[in-house]
Amino acid sequence: MSDYGQAFTLMREAAQGPWRDYTRHAFVEGMKDGTLPREAFLHYLRQDYVFLIHFSRAWALAVVKSETHSEMLTAVATVNALVAEEMQLHIGICEAEGISGEELFATEERAENLAYTRFVLEAGYSGDLLDLLAALAPCVMGYGEIGKRLAAEATSETYHDWITTYANPDYQGACKAVGELLDAALTRRVGADFTVSPRWKRLCHTFRTATELEVNFWQMGLTP
Amino acid sequence: MSDYGQAFTLMREAAQGPWRDYTRHAFVEGMKDGTLPREAFLHYLRQDYVFLIHFSRAWALAVVKSETHSEMLTAVATVNALVAEEMQLHIGICEAEGISGEELFATEERAENLAYTRFVLEAGYSGDLLDLLAALAPCVMGYGEIGKRLAAEATSETYHDWITTYANPDYQGACKAVGELLDAALTRRVGADFTVSPRWKRLCHTFRTATELEVNFWQMGLTP
Amino acid sequence: MSDYGQAFTLMREAAQGPWRDYTRHAFVEGMKDGTLPREAFLHYLRQDYVFLIHFSRAWALAVVKSETHSEMLTAVATVNALVAEEMQLHIGICEAEGISGEELFATEERAENLAYTRFVLEAGYSGDLLDLLAALAPCVMGYGEIGKRLAAEATSETYHDWITTYANPDYQGACKAVGELLDAALTRRVGADFTVSPRWKRLCHTFRTATELEVNFWQMGLTP
Amino acid sequence: MSDYGQAFTLMREAAQGPWRDYTRHAFVEGMKDGTLPREAFLHYLRQDYVFLIHFSRAWALAVVKSETHSEMLTAVATVNALVAEEMQLHIGICEAEGISGEELFATEERAENLAYTRFVLEAGYSGDLLDLLAALAPCVMGYGEIGKRLAAEATSETYHDWITTYANPDYQGACKAVGELLDAALTRRVGADFTVSPRWKRLCHTFRTATELEVNFWQMGLTP
Repeated sequence: MSDYGQAFTLMREAAQGPWRDYTRHAFVEGMKDGTLPREAFLHYLRQDYVFLIHFSRAWALAVVKSETHSEMLTAVATVNALVAEEMQLHIGICEAEGISGEELFATEERAENLAYTRFVLEAGYSGDLLDLLAALAPCVMGYGEIGKRLAAEATSETYHDWITTYANPDYQGACKAVGELLDAALTRRVGADFTVSPRWKRLCHTFRTATELEVNFWQMGLTP
Repeated sequence: MSDYGQAFTLMREAAQGPWRDYTRHAFVEGMKDGTLPREAFLHYLRQDYVFLIHFSRAWALAVVKSETHSEMLTAVATVNALVAEEMQLHIGICEAEGISGEELFATEERAENLAYTRFVLEAGYSGDLLDLLAALAPCVMGYGEIGKRLAAEATSETYHDWITTYANPDYQGACKAVGELLDAALTRRVGADFTVSPRWKRLCHTFRTATELEVNFWQMGLTP
Repeated sequence: MSDYGQAFTLMREAAQGPWRDYTRHAFVEGMKDGTLPREAFLHYLRQDYVFLIHFSRAWALAVVKSETHSEMLTAVATVNALVAEEMQLHIGICEAEGISGEELFATEERAENLAYTRFVLEAGYSGDLLDLLAALAPCVMGYGEIGKRLAAEATSETYHDWITTYANPDYQGACKAVGELLDAALTRRVGADFTVSPRWKRLCHTFRTATELEVNFWQMGLTP
Repeated sequence: MSDYGQAFTLMREAAQGPWRDYTRHAFVEGMKDGTLPREAFLHYLRQDYVFLIHFSRAWALAVVKSETHSEMLTAVATVNALVAEEMQLHIGICEAEGISGEELFATEERAENLAYTRFVLEAGYSGDLLDLLAALAPCVMGYGEIGKRLAAEATSETYHDWITTYANPDYQGACKAVGELLDAALTRRVGADFTVSPRWKRLCHTFRTATELEVNFWQMGLTP
């Protein structure tokens, strides 16, 4: 397991069951050994493109909800990476697979996809930066953890590009930065002993729900 | 079909397939002829209580997004009816069934439930009153339509109380008031010929998505 | 001084100077001894009507940001009192003074007015219920404190109606309810020892800024 | 006058009086001929730093409220320019003047400053992208217009750096990009003939109010 900060480590522990279901989902294992059908992967990729639009909006909301220049800088850097890089990457992979940009844009959003991003955005709108980060973390760090494990354990080259995207130092560094942002934002708002605050339990619940919605997202990926 | 205003009638038509799936769902037909298992109904009722909390929050957001005193008054009246009456009703029915208030409050929210309310709230936060109303309408008016039809067609007394709640003149009046609010809000913001505006298509899409999420909600009701 | 709860008492103390400037402003003292020019009062009343529209929207946002049924009930009751009663009262007083409803609705919002309500709404949108309540409290409780003092000290009947509105048991009860809501919301989110939390200082700052904006509002009232 | 797009040109015309008061304010003319006291300029710069924090948050909100990838890209680029460049510039100028970073961060926000940014943010939260852009435009384009005029008309070198910042091709290009974003967002949501829509009047009112708040901001700059 990677070190993405104190709060993440504790939230991950508290969501143990769903976290395992998420990071060891059949979809993930199928990428590891290359048995994941290409059709499922491309279906997932198209949905993930729509997901990234809303996920980027959620990270922009983290800028709006920032209270310090430092919080703003990390959130802005993440929005940038998502909008200017990760979304372009999806467009590239899809084009290479014969899915045109127009087709990609026209992807009809699935309910399992929508459920997750709207949950994240609403948590952010209704709460403060902590509520938002607790909902964002499972996606950011979960992909980091999956990427890193699969880079070490993969027995097939089929999904090498996807794995590398999340295993590479850039993405791993982003995970660490988000972990530091979460720890600092908690300390600033709740105090150094944030786990004894009444908010902690609620934040862990948000993290767990987001993790469960990630499980549903993989599941959706298996059923084009 | 009831007359709940011009915009609703057109949006309903545009969402024809999902609207039928929603208003004629097996769960609904099971209430009509009394074959719906009690366990499923109580499971639904508990989830619906959690739903009402967030649905009331969404109607409160409609007050925040109002631009006229008249818009505010209709939205406030709806919040009131939901928080002070409908939620109390659920508490009452559940208590009569031996489900304590505490048990009710502790209901774990299902993903199909969460998907719908977060979609509505996010549509409202990110857009204006029209985006919010387009997402709220399928629930309000769909229940009105179902209630009215079942009041006429029910062949069993088992779910008489539920049916009456939505068939009675109070609830039907609320549906008409929301329909008038929607028509007036559209005319105010987009103009009298609102269906030719670029926004109309998007609003119809929001209405349709909310309708599809209602289908998922009934489906969830069948699987306690 | 009235007892409107623990948090309010401490926040009021922390904002001592501005609080005195606000609750003992020349506008207030002019209502006490009847020397406030009628023109200034009516100018204030028109601006206050526009203020109430946005203030009601802010209380509706408190419903959206509620986490318990009890929080929702208090916030809903306040929205109701504002939209259904207090706003009607303003319409009544203005009509009695020969200001038509249409004239009232057409009131051009002054910058000092706008500054306050947008500050409150933005605090609510960007933060959680606590940030919102800290911004709302100075208006609610300040008027309660002013009304109560003027009911005891007034030497003129000229502004008797205004004074009674805020001195009467209904309004005083609303102040107490809001004070209880604030204490309970703090305890729920931050803990019983909420004053040692890092958030407390920030909330006190929000309360103080809102108080300063109230001073500007009275000052604006003196210059039609 | 610069060409910053069709909608801006029309909104500017509709706000004629305040627009002149804003772009030809004594503060501006004092930068032109170098008579503006240094103390006033530094006071303004400190307030403007706090302003930029909230203005950047408002542009991040524009990302959240975007409906297309293209809208997102322009808004993200603006946030970047503000957070990563313009704010750093202020820090640099202030440090050169002996104002430390800590002193700058500790600047107490003036009411005239707060009024503007909270108005913009609230317009964005409560409305859609159009409401937000109408409130953001006067600042972005007004500074572009002032910078360009002063670059041509300045009779003193004293405020050369400030003038160049807003007169240079980078900033002028940003103004054009925002103008195109506004035109495209209007066409997408309201139609090509957007000026005949009921929304147009309201958007022009938002633009005018924001312009008036800019006047107050300059005025505040003159009274350290």
